[in-house]
Amino acid sequence: MAASNLRFGAHATREVGQDFSNMISQLPAAERSGAKIGVFTDPNVAKLPVMEVVEESLVREGLNWVVWDKCAVEPTDKSWQAAIDFARSSNITHFLAVGGGSSMDTAKAANLFTNYPEADLYEFINAPIGRGRPIERKLSPLIAIPTTAGTGSETTGTAILDIPSKSFKTGIASRALKPTLGIVDLNNTATCPREVAIAAGLDVLFHSLESWTAVPFNERTPRPANPINRPAYQGSNPISDIFSKWALETTIKYLPRISKDAQGDTEARAQMLLAASTAGIGFGNAGVHIPHAFSYPISSLNKGRPKERQYHHPSYAPDVPLIPHGVAVSLTAPAVFNFTAPSSPQRHREAAAIFMGDRAGELARVRDEDLGRVLQEEIRRFLDILGVPRGLSEVGYKNEDIATLVEGCMPQRRVLDLAPILAKDDKAQEREQLTHIVEGSMSW
Amino acid sequence: MAASNLRFGAHATREVGQDFSNMISQLPAAERSGAKIGVFTDPNVAKLPVMEVVEESLVREGLNWVVWDKCAVEPTDKSWQAAIDFARSSNITHFLAVGGGSSMDTAKAANLFTNYPEADLYEFINAPIGRGRPIERKLSPLIAIPTTAGTGSETTGTAILDIPSKSFKTGIASRALKPTLGIVDLNNTATCPREVAIAAGLDVLFHSLESWTAVPFNERTPRPANPINRPAYQGSNPISDIFSKWALETTIKYLPRISKDAQGDTEARAQMLLAASTAGIGFGNAGVHIPHAFSYPISSLNKGRPKERQYHHPSYAPDVPLIPHGVAVSLTAPAVFNFTAPSSPQRHREAAAIFMGDRAGELARVRDEDLGRVLQEEIRRFLDILGVPRGLSEVGYKNEDIATLVEGCMPQRRVLDLAPILAKDDKAQEREQLTHIVEGSMSW
Ligand SMILES: NC(=O)c1ccc[n+]([C@@H]2O[C@H](COP(=O)([O-])OP(=O)(O)OC[C@H]3O[C@@H](n4cnc5c(N)ncnc54)[C@H](O)[C@@H]3O)[C@@H](O)[C@H]2O)c1
Ligand SMILES: NC(=O)c1ccc[n+]([C@@H]2O[C@H](COP(=O)([O-])OP(=O)(O)OC[C@H]3O[C@@H](n4cnc5c(N)ncnc54)[C@H](O)[C@@H]3O)[C@@H](O)[C@H]2O)c1
Ligand SMILES: [Fe+2]
Ligand SMILES: [Fe+2]
Repeated sequence: MAASNLRFGAHATREVGQDFSNMISQLPAAERSGAKIGVFTDPNVAKLPVMEVVEESLVREGLNWVVWDKCAVEPTDKSWQAAIDFARSSNITHFLAVGGGSSMDTAKAANLFTNYPEADLYEFINAPIGRGRPIERKLSPLIAIPTTAGTGSETTGTAILDIPSKSFKTGIASRALKPTLGIVDLNNTATCPREVAIAAGLDVLFHSLESWTAVPFNERTPRPANPINRPAYQGSNPISDIFSKWALETTIKYLPRISKDAQGDTEARAQMLLAASTAGIGFGNAGVHIPHAFSYPISSLNKGRPKERQYHHPSYAPDVPLIPHGVAVSLTAPAVFNFTAPSSPQRHREAAAIFMGDRAGELARVRDEDLGRVLQEEIRRFLDILGVPRGLSEVGYKNEDIATLVEGCMPQRRVLDLAPILAKDDKAQEREQLTHIVEGSMSW
Repeated sequence: MAASNLRFGAHATREVGQDFSNMISQLPAAERSGAKIGVFTDPNVAKLPVMEVVEESLVREGLNWVVWDKCAVEPTDKSWQAAIDFARSSNITHFLAVGGGSSMDTAKAANLFTNYPEADLYEFINAPIGRGRPIERKLSPLIAIPTTAGTGSETTGTAILDIPSKSFKTGIASRALKPTLGIVDLNNTATCPREVAIAAGLDVLFHSLESWTAVPFNERTPRPANPINRPAYQGSNPISDIFSKWALETTIKYLPRISKDAQGDTEARAQMLLAASTAGIGFGNAGVHIPHAFSYPISSLNKGRPKERQYHHPSYAPDVPLIPHGVAVSLTAPAVFNFTAPSSPQRHREAAAIFMGDRAGELARVRDEDLGRVLQEEIRRFLDILGVPRGLSEVGYKNEDIATLVEGCMPQRRVLDLAPILAKDDKAQEREQLTHIVEGSMSW
């Protein structure tokens, strides 16, 4: 298992031009003059101080660079394709992502498809929607500068997109997509609105808790002949556990402070930013499971609903229907951890203890068979502090949508394969289990 | 910061042949048939089951390999040179280390000097003893299989040797030395005698505690223009802190169990093995400080003393005078952390709390100015449980040796530069501070 290269600290962004200069100076002389940096960001982030710092640094180094500032928030097949077309036609040789997961994931896709100029969008997307071809070429250098404390995409080999025409959100997963360098700079989250910071923080919370409770690496099937062939999402393991648990503790401690003071509480912002990268390393190696599997149809189906039933999250662009990824993940999480608790009572007990803090002593009286219910309550209590919608009904889902949500979840094998307890070999039983989880997630 | 690639689990060693086959298959066709694996181990480890597993695996893959089983325990310039001569003359293309830090460090040296066939031993050794030339070539692949839970050398870019003729222990430090892959296999520590396991575990303890209390990365001088140019030992930082603190907690919890049952307590062995790698990642990025700086003269001077004054540690070869590295590190540690406590009372308080466990509540009544003394007592109490010699006098040092130990410590700049409080710019004051530490380490 490898962690990404990370540079951290306030002001770490200032040297990004020099990083590219260093990379370019290592090219054969003939290629150096052709080097061109493509900066990928979204229209919002493009106007923030971070982009000024980035541009200043690129100018200072006298580099050749262009900006693509049309990354869509929660990108789609269309927005990816536009970014890819831009990168291909601009002959980008070095990639820079500045933004949240949306911009970072778009830059990963642009990098991939520029290095596979003949491939269409579905070539690498996870089966069954895409053809899931493995990435064998070495991609171009990519530096990722996160501006949210959320996805950890600066550390992962994952890129997520929504395909609204198929009501299907999925992605591409390969170690080849990992950024060359992540620049984790506290100054860059100072402008995040409260709602964005909370949604991003919820993503960190469940990256941590899902990877910490994922099927252990040595029980995951199919088992490769040589451990070196384990997939990136290899199941929970002793090293990802260190990251995941640290990120879990840190998020539970600091996210409520973000909710009270999203921009001014520098210590809380610093800890959440580090937790985001740390959870990224944890889940990027161990994987996530059911809450993420459900988040994809939850987010995607919202866009296809009649206008009057579409959900819009506060502080996100009012003209775009959106259940932010972190919120979508949270909606089934309480029911999921009630369901998974019997798989590893000790881990679920430790998780409950972290949520309970000073009240953890009460756990001594809780029997293993009651742990799931207790953990479910603790997660709900935590989400309430943050003002998260209390169930799927609050983002517009009705009982008649349950089957559709389950059908949208079941093909998400890459993550579902890491879910404990789930009856993966018996589709009827798996469907029943997932249905039960959605039913328990409608409202609380 | 990057963590090494690690493969872990019981039986992880079994596939090492396949790992080499994979590496070799990526070579240009012309080079494949010339590939030759050099296995570096010591005469003791050569007879253990781990070497059977390794050899079986290499044979199964039909690889071309040779064994060098003469790595010295706590290697010297002579033992390194012999290994280097062997590697150069055998045209080794791929390196495998099987053993403790002694074998892993020797394999790193053999790899380095085989790739610099014109260089003499002093070329890369840290100044002022060596010429400290930076390593610019890419070295050959090296897989490291630790058989002790100690040095973390499978994760670091460090290789340590003793130069008895100069009474100077020092090393080479460069990210280029990092093994390509570390195979961390619980089966391989099952044969460690109690004394070896404790000495190795003490090394883990102080890798953790020293890196956790090292000068913070953003206060370390000289400060490079671009953070990417920070040295491998860059000072404590938010990511190494995660590793160092986890390793500290784990070692304090499990090392006493090793002391009671060094081979049978599988859980304790598993946790200590993971702590060794984790502490390696922590200190390999943050650095260690005064206890390590003192350990080098403490170990080295012992060899130069008249025979009747030489110290021999139980369970190590009776004919070789040896203060094992982990023991040498421990001897000044209590006094050192008393000295460093004012630099970061909060960190030292947290460390004391970890040592105190159930008694940590008592710390509430301890004022910051008394923390150093309390932590010193806690470390001594912990060392007593493990049966560590109670001070330098128990390994044969007398008051008349104090000045020599201090003079042997002061040139260890690579680590001393990371020591908090130490008056690095005022040699007279630094000497006084270090003298005070040795005086306080003679006996307790
Ligand atoms: N690749 C991965 O490993 C991974 C993991 C989890 C989620 N994701 C994906 O990432 C996307 C979500 O990313 P996200 O949560 O980081 O948010 P985002 O990139 O979608 O940004 C959310 C909103 O916040 C704004 N914003 C971002 N940074 C800001 C700042 N510093 N100041 C002010 N406004 C700012 C954006 O302009 C946008 O309007 C989803 O598509 C999700 O599926 C990817
Ligand atoms: N490179 C680094 O980052 C780093 C860090 C700390 C220390 N070191 C160096 O590493 C050396 C110490 O290494 P170590 O503590 O791992 O011990 P070691 O390699 O010196 O071995 C100690 C003794 O234990 C025996 N042994 C090892 N594994 C065994 C097993 N599984 N079963 C039975 N016997 C076994 C050895 O044969 C030897 O006699 C010192 O030279 C020290 O300075 C290096
Ligand atoms: Fe996520
Ligand atoms: Fe050490």
